[in-house]
Amino acid sequence: MTDALKRGRDVLAEMNPEIEQVLRDRYDGILPGFAESLVEWAYGRHYSREGLDMKTRQLCTVAALTTLGGQTAPQLKINIENTLAAGASEREIAEAIWQMAVYGGLPAAINGLNAAKEVFEAY
Amino acid sequence: MTDALKRGRDVLAEMNPEIEQVLRDRYDGILPGFAESLVEWAYGRHYSREGLDMKTRQLCTVAALTTLGGQTAPQLKINIENTLAAGASEREIAEAIWQMAVYGGLPAAINGLNAAKEVFEAY
Amino acid sequence: MTDALKRGRDVLAEMNPEIEQVLRDRYDGILPGFAESLVEWAYGRHYSREGLDMKTRQLCTVAALTTLGGQTAPQLKINIENTLAAGASEREIAEAIWQMAVYGGLPAAINGLNAAKEVFEAY
Amino acid sequence: MTDALKRGRDVLAEMNPEIEQVLRDRYDGILPGFAESLVEWAYGRHYSREGLDMKTRQLCTVAALTTLGGQTAPQLKINIENTLAAGASEREIAEAIWQMAVYGGLPAAINGLNAAKEVFEAY
Amino acid sequence: MTDALKRGRDVLAEMNPEIEQVLRDRYDGILPGFAESLVEWAYGRHYSREGLDMKTRQLCTVAALTTLGGQTAPQLKINIENTLAAGASEREIAEAIWQMAVYGGLPAAINGLNAAKEVFEAY
Amino acid sequence: MTDALKRGRDVLAEMNPEIEQVLRDRYDGILPGFAESLVEWAYGRHYSREGLDMKTRQLCTVAALTTLGGQTAPQLKINIENTLAAGASEREIAEAIWQMAVYGGLPAAINGLNAAKEVFEAY
Repeated sequence: MTDALKRGRDVLAEMNPEIEQVLRDRYDGILPGFAESLVEWAYGRHYSREGLDMKTRQLCTVAALTTLGGQTAPQLKINIENTLAAGASEREIAEAIWQMAVYGGLPAAINGLNAAKEVFEAY
Repeated sequence: MTDALKRGRDVLAEMNPEIEQVLRDRYDGILPGFAESLVEWAYGRHYSREGLDMKTRQLCTVAALTTLGGQTAPQLKINIENTLAAGASEREIAEAIWQMAVYGGLPAAINGLNAAKEVFEAY
Repeated sequence: MTDALKRGRDVLAEMNPEIEQVLRDRYDGILPGFAESLVEWAYGRHYSREGLDMKTRQLCTVAALTTLGGQTAPQLKINIENTLAAGASEREIAEAIWQMAVYGGLPAAINGLNAAKEVFEAY
Repeated sequence: MTDALKRGRDVLAEMNPEIEQVLRDRYDGILPGFAESLVEWAYGRHYSREGLDMKTRQLCTVAALTTLGGQTAPQLKINIENTLAAGASEREIAEAIWQMAVYGGLPAAINGLNAAKEVFEAY
Repeated sequence: MTDALKRGRDVLAEMNPEIEQVLRDRYDGILPGFAESLVEWAYGRHYSREGLDMKTRQLCTVAALTTLGGQTAPQLKINIENTLAAGASEREIAEAIWQMAVYGGLPAAINGLNAAKEVFEAY
Repeated sequence: MTDALKRGRDVLAEMNPEIEQVLRDRYDGILPGFAESLVEWAYGRHYSREGLDMKTRQLCTVAALTTLGGQTAPQLKINIENTLAAGASEREIAEAIWQMAVYGGLPAAINGLNAAKEVFEAY
């Protein structure tokens, strides 16, 4: 097992221990190695890094997914959940999204707030 | 003077007191009211809000401008400067940008790091 | 009340007098001041401006939302309604959308036409 | 009939002979000449070109629609079908999509894989 | 010669009679038929259409190129020139661009205004 | 050394053996582990995969970078070089780029052709 893969699995052990198996069942059939590759890259090479705390890292992700728009709505919802889990308040998340109205335009920000409302109400 | 405009000017008084006049000289000739409108919206309606500290707000902006790509390079550089001024370290800024490789792809992240290097070296 | 906020409310008094309250009910709970801020910026600082007639302003918005793509589909539909209300014909709206096939590609233009068909048929 | 229009119809005669009539019924009412124009441009001026075989052309299209994101999901599914019809394997298509994680980010690639899975399972 | 190609050349005869040859010299060497194909599609199938006057068509194009961002800066400048030639005032163009701050964000709008300033000052 | 990192280095040993050191010198100072991480992900987890030949993989990358637009111009040029090195002809590359006019619009395709011309002329 690679070092980065191991670090990725360590991050997920706390955050979402079942996700690698879910991804493997869903995608490895059409794309061998998918789940391992994603865990190594996203969690082993990014979320496990030092230099920026997890909560800020997650708020940055929420901000960026908001500006990337509709294509990333499913990922935005998952990351809003992860950002709450990393200790951010609902208000902080809403602020990070609304700030994006300046940079990505109102439609992106409003669609982001709609995603946040769905997550907050389901929590 | 509107409330939001006043709040925006108060934020800029600390951050960059000359920017409104610079914007007025540059753009109000072709677009009456431009500078006032921008100060009111970006600084009076966003950066002056409570609920998220300025440093995190700035790091979110840097992350989002990274994923928005080449079109926003000049704004990215200005916001990297503002993020340093808000107390973030160079490392935190580089981490927020590199995190975006996961969501916006390698080219966006690398171009963002190039912008950061330019700002850090000129500082 | 600020000047820009007042101008925004004056525009909406004719166009859609209930929208501020709808936005307040929907978003101000997670984001204090949202509705007022949006009315001030979008309607008080943009749609109320002189220098370009409302119908052309709306057609430009429809064109831009078409190229911005799927992320802005809800906003595109609302603006197609507003563009009809500003005096544009269905044909003018379809032309503005189809023109975007040159600049934003066929998928964006076809998705825009689908949004227009939905609005025209519901009218 | 124009040369490019004729070439486009010849390509479609093998690929999907009913599509021009479907497009005409759906869009020419709001936009005269739509179907003819699309056939001439996309099939007569692009897919009928020499210099790159149809299978590679289709794989490039799948890759690009993946990075363009959610706005192009309906077009992505149609082109995945066309790419299978042009002789590509499911594995080749999945690889072309996953490669885009490097350039357009993980959300775009995963949403592309989801579209591919839907097409593969319906086949 | 196809009908759409002829219509495209008729539009360009007034607007910019040398452009087809310029495009042919620049691109047909690596891509046979490029110039003809572009004239047929952009001018023969779009700008020559009825149903929306040329000036509004051009303002819509300027708005859309503004939101599409940095990738389209050269095309934006050309279209600002064409929009002036179609009878729009500098103010109308600046308004169409600034309107986009609402939908595409401030960086896109400001970069669009910078392009406009360059064109206006060179005129 | 991880398996994916080793596979990535094996791919680069043929393609561009100096790039990891260049990346390390340029970026690891502000972002520890950058070069290793990029080699592992892009080359070890993507370009080294089976299931799609390198030439087609590269043509897909060129197509996608074309539609992603101006933000990715430096990466597009590098990948056009890599695509020539993988055995594609200039014509095949130009065709893959021009095909994108259908999906990403004319500005993206023309800017892509300009990048290709620069690379072809420097070769």
